[in-house]
Order: sequence, then C-alpha cells, then structure tokens
Amino acid sequence: MKNPATLAAAVCLGALMTPVPSQAQLFTTPREQMIELTAQNPFERFPDGRPKVPDALIERARGLSAEEVWTILPKEGFRSQYADGFRILHPDRKLVGRAFTLQFMPARPDLDAALSAQQQAKGQGRLYNQYAIDMLQPGDVLVVDLFGKKVDGTIVGDNLFYYVMKATHSGGLVVDGSVRDLDGISEIDMPAYFRSVDPTPIGNVMLTGINIPIRIGGVTVMPGDLVVGDREGVYFIPPQEVKDVLDRADETHVHDEWTKKKFDEGRYKSSEIYGSPTDPKLKQEYQEYLKKRLEEIRRKRDSH
Amino acid sequence: MKNPATLAAAVCLGALMTPVPSQAQLFTTPREQMIELTAQNPFERFPDGRPKVPDALIERARGLSAEEVWTILPKEGFRSQYADGFRILHPDRKLVGRAFTLQFMPARPDLDAALSAQQQAKGQGRLYNQYAIDMLQPGDVLVVDLFGKKVDGTIVGDNLFYYVMKATHSGGLVVDGSVRDLDGISEIDMPAYFRSVDPTPIGNVMLTGINIPIRIGGVTVMPGDLVVGDREGVYFIPPQEVKDVLDRADETHVHDEWTKKKFDEGRYKSSEIYGSPTDPKLKQEYQEYLKKRLEEIRRKRDSH
Amino acid sequence: MKNPATLAAAVCLGALMTPVPSQAQLFTTPREQMIELTAQNPFERFPDGRPKVPDALIERARGLSAEEVWTILPKEGFRSQYADGFRILHPDRKLVGRAFTLQFMPARPDLDAALSAQQQAKGQGRLYNQYAIDMLQPGDVLVVDLFGKKVDGTIVGDNLFYYVMKATHSGGLVVDGSVRDLDGISEIDMPAYFRSVDPTPIGNVMLTGINIPIRIGGVTVMPGDLVVGDREGVYFIPPQEVKDVLDRADETHVHDEWTKKKFDEGRYKSSEIYGSPTDPKLKQEYQEYLKKRLEEIRRKRDSH
Amino acid sequence: MKNPATLAAAVCLGALMTPVPSQAQLFTTPREQMIELTAQNPFERFPDGRPKVPDALIERARGLSAEEVWTILPKEGFRSQYADGFRILHPDRKLVGRAFTLQFMPARPDLDAALSAQQQAKGQGRLYNQYAIDMLQPGDVLVVDLFGKKVDGTIVGDNLFYYVMKATHSGGLVVDGSVRDLDGISEIDMPAYFRSVDPTPIGNVMLTGINIPIRIGGVTVMPGDLVVGDREGVYFIPPQEVKDVLDRADETHVHDEWTKKKFDEGRYKSSEIYGSPTDPKLKQEYQEYLKKRLEEIRRKRDSH
Amino acid sequence: MKNPATLAAAVCLGALMTPVPSQAQLFTTPREQMIELTAQNPFERFPDGRPKVPDALIERARGLSAEEVWTILPKEGFRSQYADGFRILHPDRKLVGRAFTLQFMPARPDLDAALSAQQQAKGQGRLYNQYAIDMLQPGDVLVVDLFGKKVDGTIVGDNLFYYVMKATHSGGLVVDGSVRDLDGISEIDMPAYFRSVDPTPIGNVMLTGINIPIRIGGVTVMPGDLVVGDREGVYFIPPQEVKDVLDRADETHVHDEWTKKKFDEGRYKSSEIYGSPTDPKLKQEYQEYLKKRLEEIRRKRDSH
Amino acid sequence: MKNPATLAAAVCLGALMTPVPSQAQLFTTPREQMIELTAQNPFERFPDGRPKVPDALIERARGLSAEEVWTILPKEGFRSQYADGFRILHPDRKLVGRAFTLQFMPARPDLDAALSAQQQAKGQGRLYNQYAIDMLQPGDVLVVDLFGKKVDGTIVGDNLFYYVMKATHSGGLVVDGSVRDLDGISEIDMPAYFRSVDPTPIGNVMLTGINIPIRIGGVTVMPGDLVVGDREGVYFIPPQEVKDVLDRADETHVHDEWTKKKFDEGRYKSSEIYGSPTDPKLKQEYQEYLKKRLEEIRRKRDSH
Repeated sequence: MKNPATLAAAVCLGALMTPVPSQAQLFTTPREQMIELTAQNPFERFPDGRPKVPDALIERARGLSAEEVWTILPKEGFRSQYADGFRILHPDRKLVGRAFTLQFMPARPDLDAALSAQQQAKGQGRLYNQYAIDMLQPGDVLVVDLFGKKVDGTIVGDNLFYYVMKATHSGGLVVDGSVRDLDGISEIDMPAYFRSVDPTPIGNVMLTGINIPIRIGGVTVMPGDLVVGDREGVYFIPPQEVKDVLDRADETHVHDEWTKKKFDEGRYKSSEIYGSPTDPKLKQEYQEYLKKRLEEIRRKRDSH
Repeated sequence: MKNPATLAAAVCLGALMTPVPSQAQLFTTPREQMIELTAQNPFERFPDGRPKVPDALIERARGLSAEEVWTILPKEGFRSQYADGFRILHPDRKLVGRAFTLQFMPARPDLDAALSAQQQAKGQGRLYNQYAIDMLQPGDVLVVDLFGKKVDGTIVGDNLFYYVMKATHSGGLVVDGSVRDLDGISEIDMPAYFRSVDPTPIGNVMLTGINIPIRIGGVTVMPGDLVVGDREGVYFIPPQEVKDVLDRADETHVHDEWTKKKFDEGRYKSSEIYGSPTDPKLKQEYQEYLKKRLEEIRRKRDSH
Repeated sequence: MKNPATLAAAVCLGALMTPVPSQAQLFTTPREQMIELTAQNPFERFPDGRPKVPDALIERARGLSAEEVWTILPKEGFRSQYADGFRILHPDRKLVGRAFTLQFMPARPDLDAALSAQQQAKGQGRLYNQYAIDMLQPGDVLVVDLFGKKVDGTIVGDNLFYYVMKATHSGGLVVDGSVRDLDGISEIDMPAYFRSVDPTPIGNVMLTGINIPIRIGGVTVMPGDLVVGDREGVYFIPPQEVKDVLDRADETHVHDEWTKKKFDEGRYKSSEIYGSPTDPKLKQEYQEYLKKRLEEIRRKRDSH
Repeated sequence: MKNPATLAAAVCLGALMTPVPSQAQLFTTPREQMIELTAQNPFERFPDGRPKVPDALIERARGLSAEEVWTILPKEGFRSQYADGFRILHPDRKLVGRAFTLQFMPARPDLDAALSAQQQAKGQGRLYNQYAIDMLQPGDVLVVDLFGKKVDGTIVGDNLFYYVMKATHSGGLVVDGSVRDLDGISEIDMPAYFRSVDPTPIGNVMLTGINIPIRIGGVTVMPGDLVVGDREGVYFIPPQEVKDVLDRADETHVHDEWTKKKFDEGRYKSSEIYGSPTDPKLKQEYQEYLKKRLEEIRRKRDSH
Repeated sequence: MKNPATLAAAVCLGALMTPVPSQAQLFTTPREQMIELTAQNPFERFPDGRPKVPDALIERARGLSAEEVWTILPKEGFRSQYADGFRILHPDRKLVGRAFTLQFMPARPDLDAALSAQQQAKGQGRLYNQYAIDMLQPGDVLVVDLFGKKVDGTIVGDNLFYYVMKATHSGGLVVDGSVRDLDGISEIDMPAYFRSVDPTPIGNVMLTGINIPIRIGGVTVMPGDLVVGDREGVYFIPPQEVKDVLDRADETHVHDEWTKKKFDEGRYKSSEIYGSPTDPKLKQEYQEYLKKRLEEIRRKRDSH
Repeated sequence: MKNPATLAAAVCLGALMTPVPSQAQLFTTPREQMIELTAQNPFERFPDGRPKVPDALIERARGLSAEEVWTILPKEGFRSQYADGFRILHPDRKLVGRAFTLQFMPARPDLDAALSAQQQAKGQGRLYNQYAIDMLQPGDVLVVDLFGKKVDGTIVGDNLFYYVMKATHSGGLVVDGSVRDLDGISEIDMPAYFRSVDPTPIGNVMLTGINIPIRIGGVTVMPGDLVVGDREGVYFIPPQEVKDVLDRADETHVHDEWTKKKFDEGRYKSSEIYGSPTDPKLKQEYQEYLKKRLEEIRRKRDSH
C-alpha cells in the first residue's frame, strides 16, 4: 500500500561499493567469476553462472527439517550456515528455493555520486531495488542484507511482495531487515522471514550488490545456495551438499517412522529404541525396515 | 478472574500529580483548556471538550494501514505518532477509535495523602482505576501510560476487560504496561495492545491523570486522537489530520488495486509499474483508472 | 527427526551429583530424604517418595488461571513460584501435572570420569537423558534445568517428545533450555514450554540430578509440585497448597460469572460491581448467588 | 562545544501539556498547590513553595550511602525512591542537593502551536530549556525526564553543563536521557547521572513541565526532594524523611566502625559480630561504644 | 554499612536442597565424596578433602592471562571454564586463589522448615551466609551462585566484604549476583567480580550448598579450582591442569618478550615474526632465546 | 600473549572477495577504481589510490569533538557517519587517523578453496590477517568489520596490537568485533575501540576485503576517511569534508571560550548568552572577539 510518489525521493540508490575495476559490470558477479567461486556446484547454471539446484531436489527439500541439515553440514566443515531470530510470516509453510542475493549499505552521497557517474558512463540510469527485483526467477528466494535495519529498512511493502511472489512462483523472502504492510503481506501466500516491521519505506541506504556473497546473521550466503526455512530458522545449503543432505534425510524419516511405531507398541523404553536400538534383534529388524522403506521411497520418487 | 477482595487493598490510588491550582477539577483537563489545547480539531466535541472524530470516519479508518498514515503525518510535521513493540491480542482485528487517556505514576504515600485530602475536600472518595473506566464512551480506545510496568502493572484482568469491551462497544485497549488473565481475555472480542502479561493485580502505582496528554513509547497522545492499530503497531492521528489521511488512503487503495492487476497480467517488470508507471501511456491509463475508481468509491460511500 | 547415530557421541553424560556420600544412590533423592523434604505433603506418594497429587485434583486444576494461584500462594509465604518468558507450543492447551525434575550442568571431563567410575562400581552404565525419561509416569510434567542453554541445550527432538507424550499421557514439558524439531513437535498434542529452538542436539552438558530440587527462572521446583501452565506462564504449586488454591478458584469462577452477568445487564458501572458490589443489596444478591453456585459445583463434582 | 546557531532551529520548544486552566501560570506548580502537594515538608520553602532542605542537612548527607537510605524509606512506605542504570560522570564524587525538575515529551506541532499561543497571550515568548535552567538555585540538582531518549535527547553540552555547575554551585544533574560533549563535560567538576551520550543537540521534544512531579525510571520525583547519588545509583528522599535517614546513618557509621575494629582484632568470626554481636558482653560493649561515639559526633557537629 | 538489625529478619536461610540422606552432614560434601569427585587432584587437600593448590603455584599464577589458560584447557577437554560479563571492582588487580563455593536458591517456606528441622535434629541452629563465610581460609576465593539476582541478591556489603578480605588474605570474591555498598567496598583492597549492585540486603533466598559443585554462567565450578581473574573475566582451572598451564605460560611470556623485541627493531613485518618466525634463522634464534630465558626463569624461581 | 603455534591452525583465511573478475587483483581496490570511488578527495593519495588527508589536518583534528563534526556532516548529506557502543581502551586519548579497512565474513570451506586457488594462480599463498596488518602506514587507523563477533572474533592480542601501534605510530584501532589480552593491551599507548573482549583467538572467519568500503555499525566507511574518536564514539569524515569541519570547529572553540568567560562574570543568564547573545551589544562584542581570536589562531597555526 505504498504511496506511488514517495519512494523515488526517499531512497538513496544507485551506489556500488565493491572493489571492482571500473570496466567491469557493476553490480553482478561476472559469469566466469561466479563459476570460479562456486566451482564445486554439481548442477546446471543460470546464464549468469549462478548454480541452479534442480527443481526435483527443491521438491524433495520440502520434507527437510533443520535438524536433518545439521546432521550433514558441520561434518563437511560448514559450521555456520544456519540463521534464526526472524519473524516468520507463515510458520506452517516450508520455505525452499535458490538464493538470489542483494546487499545494501548505509548511504553516503560521495559514493552515490561516484557510482551514478559510472552507471551513466555505461548508459544506465540510477538503480532502484526494483531493478534487482526484476531479475528474479521462478524458484528463487530473495535474500537481502539490510544489516538488521528497522526504520527505513523495509525491503518491500505489499505491492512489491506481491510482485516477488509472482516472479518467484511463491519462492520466498529472507531479509536481515524489515518489511512494511504486514496486514497486506499476511494475505499473500509466500513464505517470508524478516527481523521486524515498520511503516516507513526503505531509505538512507544504497544498493551495493546483486548476487554477490552476503552475510545474513552469522552466515555467508552464496547466490545459488539452497535456502530451506522452517518454523525455527533458515539453512543455506551449498549446492554440492544438497544431494547428501536429502539422501540422509530419507534415512532419518524412516528412522523416525520406525521409532514412533515402536513407541506406539508401548513395550520399549526410550533408551532401548532411541537413537539406535540396543537389542541386536531389534537392530536387525530396524535395518531391514530401513532398507525396505528406502527402496519404496526411491521407487515412488522415480515413478513420478 | 480477579479474586473479589484483593484489589482495593493492593492498589494505591487517588493521587494527582499535575500542576493544577487546587480549585481546579482534579483529574480532567477542564473543557476550556481542552478546547485550547486541541484548537485545530475540526469536529464536534464531547461535553468535556474532547474532540469527537465522527463515526463515519472511524468506519472508513478500518481500511487504513500504518503505511498510509505514514504517508501524510510526517509531511505535516507529526514525526512521532507511531508506537510499536506491543503484544497484540487479536492480530487479525483492526483497532480503530478515539483516545481516552489515563496516566499512572509510581506510588508515594506523601502525594497520595495530599491528593486524597484534596479529593475529600471536594466531597469525593479515593480514586480507583474503575473510576476512570466508568467514564468510557462507545467508540473509545482506552490508552494507558503505565510506564512499561509488568509486575503490578496490569491495567485489567478479564472482568474489567469485559467491562471495557461493553462500554466502548469493542473499541479497544492500548497499554504501555501489562494485563492479567490472558486466557480469559483471549476469548473476548476486543482488540488490545500491551507490553506484557503478569498474574499480579495492579499495585504500587497512583492514577495521576484522566484525559490529559500522555506518552506511549515515543508518542505524545492527546485525548480524542484517532487510534489506529494493525498487526504492526499503533498510530495516534490528530483529529485535524484524519480527513486528509483517509482521502489519500483511497488513492493508495486504487493504486494498489491497479498495480496488482498489472502484475497479474505478467507483461510488466516491477520497475515499469511500481511506484508509478514509467510509460506515458500506462501512466495515463492509471490516471483514468484512478479517477474512475475514486468516483465509484465516493459514490458508494455517499449512498450509505 | 534426530539422526540415529549422533546423539551418543555428541552428548557428554554420566554426570555429577550433588554432595551425597558415595554409598548413597547417586542421582535420585532417597525415599526417606524425599519424605523429609516434602514433609507437608498431604497426599499419597510414589514408591520413590515423590508426592502424588491425586488425579481428581489434577483434573480440577485444568480450570485454574495463573491469577487464581497468585491469590493464595504469596499469602502463604510462597512468593516465587511463578516462571514466565517461555515460548509456548500450544497456547490454547492448559498444562497440568506432577513435576518430575532433571538438572543438567556444563560438562567437565574430570567430574564426568569420577561419576562414571561411581556408576560402574554400582554395576550401572553411563547415563543418558533417556535413562531419566524412561522413569516418567502418567500425569508427570518433565521439568528440566538446562540453564537457559540454546545451542546444544535441546532436551528433546520430535522422537523423544513423542515418547514423553506417550509416557506421561500428554502430561507436558517445561525446560529452561531449548528443543529441536519444532515442525515435528508442533504436530504432537502435548503442552510444552521452552526458552528457544535450535537444530543442534544436546551436548557439552552433564545430567546431574533426577528428582532433586531444581531452579527454573526464579522458582525452586520440588519433585511432586503441581505444575500449572497457561498462555502466560507456569506456576509450581506445593502439594499442601493445592486444595486451597482449587477451592478458592471455585469462588472466583462464580464471582466472574456473576460479574459478567451484571455487566451484561448494562445497568451498573464497573466501580459498582468490581471487585465487590458497593450496594448492600447487590452484595447480598451476590452472596446468595455464590452460595448456590458453589453448592451446585460441588454437587456436580461429587456426582462424577 | 555547541555551534552557536543550530539549537534554536533544531529544538521544538515552548509546548505545555499538563491539564491546567489557561488562566493559571503555565509551567510551574503554583505556590499554593506546591504547598498542598508537599504538605509534610518540615522545612522552609523557596518563594515558589518548593521545599528547601537546610544546607546543614545537605552537608551531612554527603556521608550517606544508598543502603542507609534503604534502611528507612521502605519501612515508611516509600518503596520506589531509588533509580539506577545511569552512566556516572565522576563516580568518586557524591551527589547531594535539592531536586529541581523538568519534564519533556515528544514534540507535536498542534500542541506546540496551542501552547505558544497561550504564552504569547501572557506576553511571554517561546520557551527553551535555557528558560528553565535560568531558574536554578545554589544547592539544586537538575532532574530531567527525557524518557530515556538518546538521539536528540541531550539536555546539555559542555557550555550549558558549565552554566548549571555555576548556577547550582556544583549541585548536579540527573537526566533520564543523554548529554553531549562528554570530553568537555568530563573536565567540569559537577556530579552527573545520564543514560547515554550522543553528538546530536536536543530536538523533536517539547518542554512540558518545570518543577512538577516527574518520573525517573521507577521513581516519582517531587520538586524539593533531597537527591543523593553514589557510584551505585540515586535516591530521591522526601524532605520529611531526611532527618530520620541521617540520624539512623550516624548509628550505622558507628556500627561499621566498631565492626571493622572487631574484625581487625582477629578474634571473632563474622557470625559472632555481624549484624549484631551474639555474646551479651560484646553486645553491651557495642552499646556503650555506640552511645559514646554518637555523642562525640553530635558534639562535633554542633560545634561547627 | 548494613544496619545491624535488619539482616536476620530479611533473609530466609537455613534451607538445604540437595539430595543427601538425612544422616549425612548437611551442607558440605563429605571428605570421602570430595576426594572421589576430585580424584585427579595432584596436590594436598584441606581437612574436608578440598584440593589445595600450593601457594607457590598461586603466586606464579598472578602472571597468567586468560589467553594462556585458553591455550591449554580446551585441548584437554575443558571447553567451558571461562565466565565473563562481570563488573570488576579493581580491574588493575589480578584475582588468584582457591575456589570456596556457595549455592543459593529462591526461598520456599516448606523446604526451609524441613531443613531447619534437620539442622535442629543435629543440634545446629538456622544457617546464615555468615556461617559459610566463617569457614573461609587464607588464599580462598569466595565463589557464589546467586543465579544473577540483583534486588535482594547482594552477597555482601562493605562490612562482610571487609571480613572476607581479612579471612582470605585478600583472596577475592566472584558472585553471580550482586553486592551492596559499592562506595564502601571500593576502598577495600580485594579483587571482586559481580553482576550488579543494589542497596537491598540479601533476601528471599536459601543457602543450599557449601563447597558443592556450582554453576557460574556457563561454568561448572568445583571446590578447590584455581580461580584466575583479569580485566576480561574469570577462569576456573581444575587443580590437575594448573602445572601445565603455568609451564606453558612461561613459554608464552618469553615468546611475547622476543616478539616485541623484534618488532622494536623495526626490520620485520608482523607476518615474518608472528605467531612463529618464517625465516629458519630467525626461528633458530628464537629457539635459543626461549631455551635461555626459560632456564633463567626457572633458576630465578628456584632461588626464592 | 598469544601462544605462538595456534593461530595458523585456528583461523580460516584466504577468503573470498566481492564480485571482481578473476583477472583483477583479489583483495584490494585497484588504484583507478579507488580514485573513481573517492573522486571528491581534494588531497594527495597513497600509491594504491587511497586518499591521504595531510598530517597537518590530522594534528588539527585532535581538538575536534563529535559535536563539531555533527554540525557539518548531516547538512552536507552525510547523516550516517557516526558509530558508538564501543568499549574504549584509553578514554582520555583522542583517536585521529586515516582509515585502513578490513572486512571479514563467516567462513565457508567452498569459498575458501575457490579463493585459495585464485591466490595460488597468482603465485601468492594463503592470506592471514597479518598480511593486511603488514600494509599499515604511519597515521593509519585500522578499521575492521568483524560483524560484532565476540568468541573467535578477536582481531588482535597484545603482540599484534603492539605491532599495529609501531606500524601506525599509535594511529589506532576500531573493530566491530573483539580483542584478546586486555591486560596486555591496556599497557600499550594506542587508542582502541572494540565491542568486547574474549580469550579465544580469531577463528571461523575469512578475510574478504582490504581497503574496500566496509560497514561499522550504521556507517559506510571508505578507505582514507579521517577517523576521529573521543570518549563518546567514532566519526568517519570523508576527506572532502575535513577542511570545513576543522574551520567551523575553530569558530566553535572561540564561541565556547567566550561563553564560559561570560558565564564566569556571573552577570548573565544562560538564555542571554547561549547559543547566541540576545543583546545586540553583546552580539557585537562576541563578533569582534570571534574575529580577533580566529586571526590569532590562524596566525599561530601558520607560524608552525
């Protein structure tokens, strides 16, 4: 419900901060560099080089819990890929998608002027946050570093939130900052994670990066990371780890299924069943159950 | 679910703090003074001089969002009329009504004695918070400065909350303090904004003002302000600004309607539409749409 | 959804008890000592000496509010039996049951070794939190001091939460620490109060007490206390106070009933009715109503 | 080090909030009303009615500790006269003096206009904080409610701080708000208690009361209260309690003297001496010591 | 400056919480149990079994920094022996001594009565905190769990602080709670670490343990731990780790000495010297310097 | 007092840069780009293009207060150049120097590997924080974004702090993170601003930028900014604003001088003198005084 005329005046945009030679493209990581920085990506890429986790894996990831991601990532050396402390728009709705990253910094008129000059030299006008939002793809999650800003730190109101929903096919939003129009946004069916809500429009900041590595809380987020959010928080999974995480989650799902079944029988104490049966016979029963169920799951998955 | 006998003993009441000559009426702003202090009020007044925003505008205000208020007030010099950080009882229900203000301060027996003496000299007994609550009118929102107090800072439990609901016709409650009986209150259909919840009854405070200017967070609230709360926070709108805010909101509603319609067509980027179309033809289309819809809205409104 | 193999390795258990002679049983308060420490308990006891508030009183306690407990306990000298500041899993569902207490402390390998040696000398293995959870009884509420720990402070994930639900017949959980698997837990019908949520499993702590007095926030909780939680917080009621609290609550319920009825009539101000009628005739009307209704309530209760 | 031209423009002043009839003097509690509100004051008064604790008692109060005030006030019903959480400018220097109170509220242009009109009708100009500061007397402590405001909440910079020091003869400052120019202020020898420091000048607030009852943290401060601050926090002592507090402190000083002497002898455990000797002979020894020393102290005091 | 008569009435004492059979000594870990729990202690013990780190090592520990302790403990599995977030009384004075531990819990009259009965059955009176303070030895540091309590959580005022200083020979105080009489305490030459300061005396708590394992922040503290505090925080070093920590610190001191010497020469970059020289010749020079200096240090130490 | 062998293992370095084409130099803003981004710099530059505010202006800036900077910068559009909330090492010592910036981000092994590969392709080894510290120049202030990290966020201990002091000629340190070895650092004469202190060495982070624009709190800091810190906080002044700020500060100093002189005369109220004299004659007196003193100051300055 943003008033149509105020944004352009209120927001200070167009600035670039990052140490790129002036002949380089200003806001995006060039394709070659993107490929080098995400060299371990096992999947296809978008035209700009951003890793593209396949749609099928995105679908499978809807069944993931944060705990299942935790089981794999720290062992692989990724100890800081989880962020929480967000207000969550629709806690019942899982967030899954590919990270599309934006970085903002506090505004400075000298930098703003320098960068506008560079933009104009390339024949482009001043940059707005819509410029970045126009680049979103289906399956994307918009991930924004607004350094926790509340007042003047609202990345979208309900109009742009609606647009992001349309453009990403309800992919989602994670912002280390705020949103406006909570009443309006609440009626739109897209998962969103934000720090706070404020009636002010975005202002006194500069857009300084599109699809560059950014920081959200204690996490370095890369463009193309698989973003998975539940009602606890958000995991940013490097593309090369996605397959392992999902396969291991299948096992955990079966383990949970079997454990609850056993608890329901009422014959076992928790220490006899959880985390792994103490009785060798039970252990074998579980191993056979696991094998059978994993096969069923894979068969069912392949048949789709 | 307050135990019937404890409140009277537990609460220290009856005190007045504000610098009024002893011959003046003790707790309320005298009618003349109220009129002077709210000289810009364009509407009728209650018998005590408090501005009375018309019922029809209160109804229209149910469609307001915090952002739409923000669009007008700071431009008019009202930069500090928004308060948030509340727990909200029924986030789905909009709060709208006229401010009825109460002020409490920490208890001091010497002041309490002095003020009780003044009350008795006027033939009135000690003052309780019920004394003030008895004065509520339909359409009022009870706005209370309890300086953020949690323990012993509970303005109402479920019995008095029920009474306030009846008296104000579900107007509402905003308290910079706490409430009791959250389970009981949750079943009553009236919007409420509070800082916290505690099982203790109100105590160790003095009622020091009825319908005087008070402070809620960073806002100076005047009796008669239009109180508008959504799931983000609460705006206190001076009566003389209400009409402008509402008229501008009509335009914003139409703008949102049109913007979403255009996004739904799927032919435009967000930067081509939001906040104002870049293409002159689209701009004209929007202007015509706006004009037509505003007329429809006004016609529909007038027909009621 | 805990991965089956990680817990045993991640958690440091086997723990340290409080200063008991080495010939004493390590983790539980011996029956005699339990009886001495809870000497005022008027009810039966579990085999280990823990007071057993009768099932019928537990049922009656489902109608209690925190305010009704507050009315009695401070007067009896129990000024610190209320804890709040929790995240509440199912705010609509009342928590009622008998306290089963656990205490954890930060891990130290030297103490861990000393206590494991003691355990082995008694022919018992290392201790896990499941060891304690296996001891839960129907009607119990698991109350855990994990000193507010978030990361590595998760007492249960969804598997063990499910087991606790089964074992206690949906008794409940209060933990001054965290839980995992919030998505999974949310689907299980048992009330739970916790400080935070984290994807990590429990770790870097020692289990140091089972059914000993523990501290939750500002409350000393005794095994066998009646635990009552609503959407505000949790009260820990000593067994000897339970009957008084419940009887007084009956009166309050009738008082609320009558008060609302009077408010509904619309003929009285709040100050004439609340907390006790000012008019002698009304007062008498209330007294008669109270007497009649209390008799009805008791009759109905006895008939069950 | 305030730049000479910016303050007038930046600060919104001149407003009055409190519910006084327009014919009354605007910002100060009229003398009669002041006398009624502080009816228990046993001392002389300033011309405006403000209680004037005698200089001799102010001098004696330099030896007070917060604990000694605590010993008396709660017993007399004053349970909320202590405020802490301040940054303290010169922790080694005791703060003692008579409260001179100011109240600010968030600015609103409509009130500001109404009050300016009232001022002009009385032939007075707009009001600045200097207007109030000009009224300070030797021995005063300036006590200011700026509702904890940091940015734009700086009551003084080093120039006005210097002036306050001169005017109050180093009386002191307590502000629930901020100050500017910490480097400059640090060189001036006057005790000061503030919440924070900021480079901005005061702004976006209205001066709404001079020598009215105000709130500092959880304390209601009355003009004329004896303000006593040490490196812990600040006590606001009602004039009628000052004598008792000081007399009791004499006893405590002697008690401390004797207790340390006994500890120095090295023959007694702490439980035999503190808080009161257990041995009847020691008790008598103490009583005699106390009597003798109190006489000496009073004699010495009278001889001055 | 505690008033002599108030403490006994205000404090609720005498209670014991921990699960010991009633025939056991109530508040202290029995000697045998203490020896089992601290089985790895390589040093002598106090008569009650508490490890006694030798005076000579305490002296050496005055040169330790928190970083030097960090270098050893986590490697040995002690990952949680550091606590910070304290206000520090004399930041320039190192804290070193043997832990003497106290535990308090929130008061409950039923437990208090039960434990007083047990004490009386043993022919002992009610217990005060002085009872514990009387047991302090030279070289002790009093370490107290008061669960962060501020109001009513003051372990000592200046009189008892003075006594503790005398009894421990200026050993020191660490309290997860508050102190009173900061002005008075500031003049006494003993290091102290506390969370806050308040004018109230200790109250509404029970003394529940003397020389039992306690928790300070995230640390499990054992009686006899070597307590080392600097202007950052406090380390609690298990006795069996003390020698290693100190020997390694000698090396670090020499390393620092040499590193600064090299930096002073101005010929090397930081990366060539720190943490270890890159040039083999420099490396050798350092190794020889280290050997020589360590010998000097040991020789000098032995000669004392 | 860092142990010599641990740092290399503990820190994850080598890190990831912002989106630069792989043929560009990785960590520094190339000279041409630096010149474009700081195009308004009126002074000389370092060989890498970083603006070099002249030594003479640095000397003059030692007399600046935060307020004097505030007077100029917001008017010029620089509304966000001030950061506070630091612990300050030597509050009595002014911080002044040229910003040398570092940026760290949370570690990710995939990015670390990618960037190490790039470094090796250029014939350079892994990067440490010493690599950056080796580049410091006399007059520099090391400004580090460690995103507020406490544990594992310690940019330096006392050895490297000593080196920075030597290399910058006591220029200074500002870190949005922590330091180690506070005891050791306290003895070194260089101003430092940090968020916290911890015994851990730096770890689990990547160095991601040297002399790029970084964010400290709400400020975008550019390499070459003039850093001015007092006991309140830190201002980052763009080079092109330095001269104006200093000239205006001269006027303020004279104004303060004159104001205090007038207050000392005791004949004027604060409102007659501050911020600007109301009496035309006084005004003229001040203008003449100002003119004369400014001339004296300039003459004295030129004579050096």
